[in-house]
Amino acid sequence: MDAPEQSFLREKSLAVEDQELAVGTLEDSHAAKPETDAAIQLPNKSKPDKSAVEKDREDFREAVVKTLDRLLFVHKSFDIYRGVAGLYDFGPHGRTVELNVLSLWRKCFVDEEDMMEVACTALTPEAVFNASGHVKNFTDLMVKDEVDGAFHRADHLVKSYCENRKKDPTISAENAAELDKVIAHVEDLSAEELGGVWNHCSSHEESTFSSSSPLQLDVSNFLWSKCYLRPETAQGSFCNFKDYYNLNGRKLPFAVAQVGRVFRNEISPRQGLLRTREFTLAEIEHFVHPEHKSHSKFSDVAKLEFLMFPREEQEKPGQFAKRLCLGEAVAKVRHVNSETLGYFIGRVYLFLIRLGIDKERLRFRHHLANEMAHYATDCWDAEIECSYGWIECVGIADRSDYDLRAHSEKSGHALVAQEKLAEPIEVEKLAITPEMKELGPAFKGNQKNVVEALEANLESKGEVEFYVCTLGKNVTIKKNMVSISKKMDKVSTWDFTPVVIEPSFGIGRIMYCLFEHCYSTRPSKAGDEQLIVFRFSPLVAPIKCKIFPLVKNQQFEEATKFISKELKSNGIKQDVDITGTSIGKRYARSDEIGVPFAITVDSETSVTIRERDSKDQVRVSLKEAASVVTSMAEEKMTWQDVWASFPLHSSAAADE
Amino acid sequence: MDAPEQSFLREKSLAVEDQELAVGTLEDSHAAKPETDAAIQLPNKSKPDKSAVEKDREDFREAVVKTLDRLLFVHKSFDIYRGVAGLYDFGPHGRTVELNVLSLWRKCFVDEEDMMEVACTALTPEAVFNASGHVKNFTDLMVKDEVDGAFHRADHLVKSYCENRKKDPTISAENAAELDKVIAHVEDLSAEELGGVWNHCSSHEESTFSSSSPLQLDVSNFLWSKCYLRPETAQGSFCNFKDYYNLNGRKLPFAVAQVGRVFRNEISPRQGLLRTREFTLAEIEHFVHPEHKSHSKFSDVAKLEFLMFPREEQEKPGQFAKRLCLGEAVAKVRHVNSETLGYFIGRVYLFLIRLGIDKERLRFRHHLANEMAHYATDCWDAEIECSYGWIECVGIADRSDYDLRAHSEKSGHALVAQEKLAEPIEVEKLAITPEMKELGPAFKGNQKNVVEALEANLESKGEVEFYVCTLGKNVTIKKNMVSISKKMDKVSTWDFTPVVIEPSFGIGRIMYCLFEHCYSTRPSKAGDEQLIVFRFSPLVAPIKCKIFPLVKNQQFEEATKFISKELKSNGIKQDVDITGTSIGKRYARSDEIGVPFAITVDSETSVTIRERDSKDQVRVSLKEAASVVTSMAEEKMTWQDVWASFPLHSSAAADE
Repeated sequence: MDAPEQSFLREKSLAVEDQELAVGTLEDSHAAKPETDAAIQLPNKSKPDKSAVEKDREDFREAVVKTLDRLLFVHKSFDIYRGVAGLYDFGPHGRTVELNVLSLWRKCFVDEEDMMEVACTALTPEAVFNASGHVKNFTDLMVKDEVDGAFHRADHLVKSYCENRKKDPTISAENAAELDKVIAHVEDLSAEELGGVWNHCSSHEESTFSSSSPLQLDVSNFLWSKCYLRPETAQGSFCNFKDYYNLNGRKLPFAVAQVGRVFRNEISPRQGLLRTREFTLAEIEHFVHPEHKSHSKFSDVAKLEFLMFPREEQEKPGQFAKRLCLGEAVAKVRHVNSETLGYFIGRVYLFLIRLGIDKERLRFRHHLANEMAHYATDCWDAEIECSYGWIECVGIADRSDYDLRAHSEKSGHALVAQEKLAEPIEVEKLAITPEMKELGPAFKGNQKNVVEALEANLESKGEVEFYVCTLGKNVTIKKNMVSISKKMDKVSTWDFTPVVIEPSFGIGRIMYCLFEHCYSTRPSKAGDEQLIVFRFSPLVAPIKCKIFPLVKNQQFEEATKFISKELKSNGIKQDVDITGTSIGKRYARSDEIGVPFAITVDSETSVTIRERDSKDQVRVSLKEAASVVTSMAEEKMTWQDVWASFPLHSSAAADE
Repeated sequence: MDAPEQSFLREKSLAVEDQELAVGTLEDSHAAKPETDAAIQLPNKSKPDKSAVEKDREDFREAVVKTLDRLLFVHKSFDIYRGVAGLYDFGPHGRTVELNVLSLWRKCFVDEEDMMEVACTALTPEAVFNASGHVKNFTDLMVKDEVDGAFHRADHLVKSYCENRKKDPTISAENAAELDKVIAHVEDLSAEELGGVWNHCSSHEESTFSSSSPLQLDVSNFLWSKCYLRPETAQGSFCNFKDYYNLNGRKLPFAVAQVGRVFRNEISPRQGLLRTREFTLAEIEHFVHPEHKSHSKFSDVAKLEFLMFPREEQEKPGQFAKRLCLGEAVAKVRHVNSETLGYFIGRVYLFLIRLGIDKERLRFRHHLANEMAHYATDCWDAEIECSYGWIECVGIADRSDYDLRAHSEKSGHALVAQEKLAEPIEVEKLAITPEMKELGPAFKGNQKNVVEALEANLESKGEVEFYVCTLGKNVTIKKNMVSISKKMDKVSTWDFTPVVIEPSFGIGRIMYCLFEHCYSTRPSKAGDEQLIVFRFSPLVAPIKCKIFPLVKNQQFEEATKFISKELKSNGIKQDVDITGTSIGKRYARSDEIGVPFAITVDSETSVTIRERDSKDQVRVSLKEAASVVTSMAEEKMTWQDVWASFPLHSSAAADE
């Protein structure tokens, strides 16, 4: 390979790396290639002739991120030590918004759908991720640039190499076709195969890249045993399936919900809240009979209409998501492969809209066949548009019986459900009768485990050695230790592996998009500056009500205390601002953290309540103030009701 | 050392290890040696002449743990893979109890005390724990037994060795005194000093122990940089102190609360929920002026009386905790060193009692001078008695200004508060005037950081090289780059480092003790078996209300749905049990998970509501049923009120 080509490869690989910073490694996680649009947008960034739209997007994003940082919604962790890329803390307002989002999530899913909420540990023994396929499938092959020490994904480099080779006018049609083939299939290769291809490519050049070596994700070594930090909560729910099934009275379907921190060893985390190394997932594992994927409450959501982007539309050039009726989409099986999957799409839509996500910037996109994770048979993403493009925020996947089957095989515990047969049937069964007087001395108290394992190895004859996972070692069974015979058995139930429908919510991503959708500015009264307003719904707002005594005196202080105490006892998050600054400045400070209601105490007997977005005010008696705000905060009353019941208060000076 | 002594050392070390399994390594964590009583009790365990009391305790514990496991309150994680010691999952009921406990915690502390709740990451860069002293102080020196591969704490082995040596009648009085000295001070030694002592001890014998080597706790190596998993949430709150202080309008005192998962590399985790490798902490960092530790609401708790165990009482033999008045204890400064610390003791007491902890089995024990963590100047533990003895569940420590000072020094960011001086004072100050035309070319855009760092290195003369943490490298400043002069400056504020009062709640431990305190049994009606009842308060109970249609028919089904829907919309966790089993069996199943209210639908117009503990029932109209249960579940109405308002329902057959 000649020098220009080599330098092109480096340049190109850096561009790929850049792109990855913004949208790249979600393939590492359970949902693959989510931000197609963003990925298409971002390489333009480095070009000097950036479009005006692009520039506006970036300016907007910068303004939002700066505000979130300044008001401590979200900020870099351990900043005094210069931070760590990909780690973010929630400050007081951000954490309260997170708790509000999770509280609505619990209400919409756990409570309304009678799910079991559980909490498994983040530390997970290696055996679990060996069985689940994470260790094999999410070990991206990485190569290191020995010049700058940066890591690059081998598949991206191979693609770049092939695309560049194709531009050589001297190569044969055959070679070009071969290169096309590599480009098309590079993402389907195993780490081993990819390593071979990469070694072939890199042998053609004087590369500064080291030879390929796999990079382990999510690894944490503890002294006591090899543990990983979970990249998803789901595996804990799968491992405990049998217990939950029993607790549910051995009935299907049922759902297990889990909210918790997960960890991903992102190579180049950027994009603030969108790609972090530690974040909160809220996941639902809905276990269902493989042949009964209908849903009893599907009719509740069947008539919903919203933006959907089916697979075949994506395959046509120039197509966009279209407003479709969910019921009709499910009816066409190729769009949504089961009612249960469709039901969750509907519920996810309702949840996100309720939070305050703009429904014109929310779409459900069907995964293309080659972008699904290794365990999924179908997947739709709830994508929300923000300044980064369309971002995957919720993945709704049919994980099939992949995980339960994998754990059954590797653990030796059958993670199955049972079903009564319409009529009992006779089956031939091998019966193993252990010779206890032989087994006892040979296995000293562990005979039971050995016999159980043996039953799963019926083909064995004569002396056989096999691994018993419950003992953690190999054992040898000799002929004299058991007697094997055939007998007929009447069977009235059959065991089957349930399938899993999994809606998985990236809470941090949803929050970031919500922040962008709620962010707005308006000119100050004097017109000399732009004031920030987060237009949060009362449900999401970190503080529901601010109370401002207009001036400092004992009567106003007492009135303020009275309202504050009542709101507290109603469970409404409130805050008193007694600083001496002007009421206008106090309103502005309240608006920028998105407080929907502001009470100004300007008399001993009555107060004003201000609506954040219109800045209009009503006058309400001191005694009623807290209950009016409480009703609106709990969405039992709207501003329309309040406008109709209380006199408008006009004060030219109010917003000064 | 002769052979018998050697074998004694091995035996003894195993006994120590055993003891550690039960109560040992909390010294690794922020609170030291908490379970003195338990530690005293447990060595007896291995003795064959166990007392009857001991035996009862163990039987009780076994019954509780078995029940928690069977009902999936708490169970071993990844059990299908034989689990990992020290990792436990919460099943549906356990997780709901945890959420209830955390919800009350937020109400009692975050909301009532206007705290800021934040969420920092669990992944923490090494620099943070270098500064905090965790890396240095919590690196227990471990030695490995090369025979069985087990790790033992070197300080325990040294102590055993010395105690055994003393029994040798031939040793001199001088030697014996020296051994006593080692025994007394072994816990105060640094890892390095201890290593020296251990090497000296072990050189006297043919040991199977390897030479000592430090064992790192909480370590997780990521590719990108060395990170630890946090063993407490506090360090994140400390690192962000300045931001929180600014957000609070630069006023003290204020408190930062954090609930999150923490990780500890326990050597030999046992004791179920009491010593785990991953668990939930709820911590409060209350930042206060070092000279103003009084508390404006102290009078709210001053009159409380409960069991306290001051330091001097513990030092007298045979003393126990005594019922003391909190206000009086605080007045005697040597008992509780500040009103703020005392205030939190009172609030912790009220919180635990409200949860349902038996107040006769709750005491506040003052730490002895030598058992406090390296950062603490005072500490009281809320200890709850359970079958393991008195267990530390909440530590209330005065961490002084240790942490903020340490992070200021190591990070170069002054984590201080400011106070106005009564009158401005003049101070002499060195003024550094940078020569920008020299600095610019030398540091290319980083001049500002360099000058800032230089100001912290005023003594420097001529050419000086120093480390600029914001650049992450050394820089060299030459004489011509700056000019230094002296000038007088008027100063009207001074900077000081706040001190931290920290109540730290081990949520899992509180829950385990609560489970033991609420566990009870009573004979079945037939008297042939003992039925389990968890006597949870409505606040804590995982399910508030069970609904039982007496028989299967459409009318009862509709009535059941009506009540279920109403309870749901009131936010009351309920569950319908439509299994065909007898009503008595359904009551028993409801009692054993601690459901306080059971509604039986035995007519179309009215239902019965059953009180779990007395098994008494009232008859209530169908329409009122949900609201009566809601009022009681929310503690707005008591059973006394209900007994007075509704007719008692007697049914001899009810509990069959």
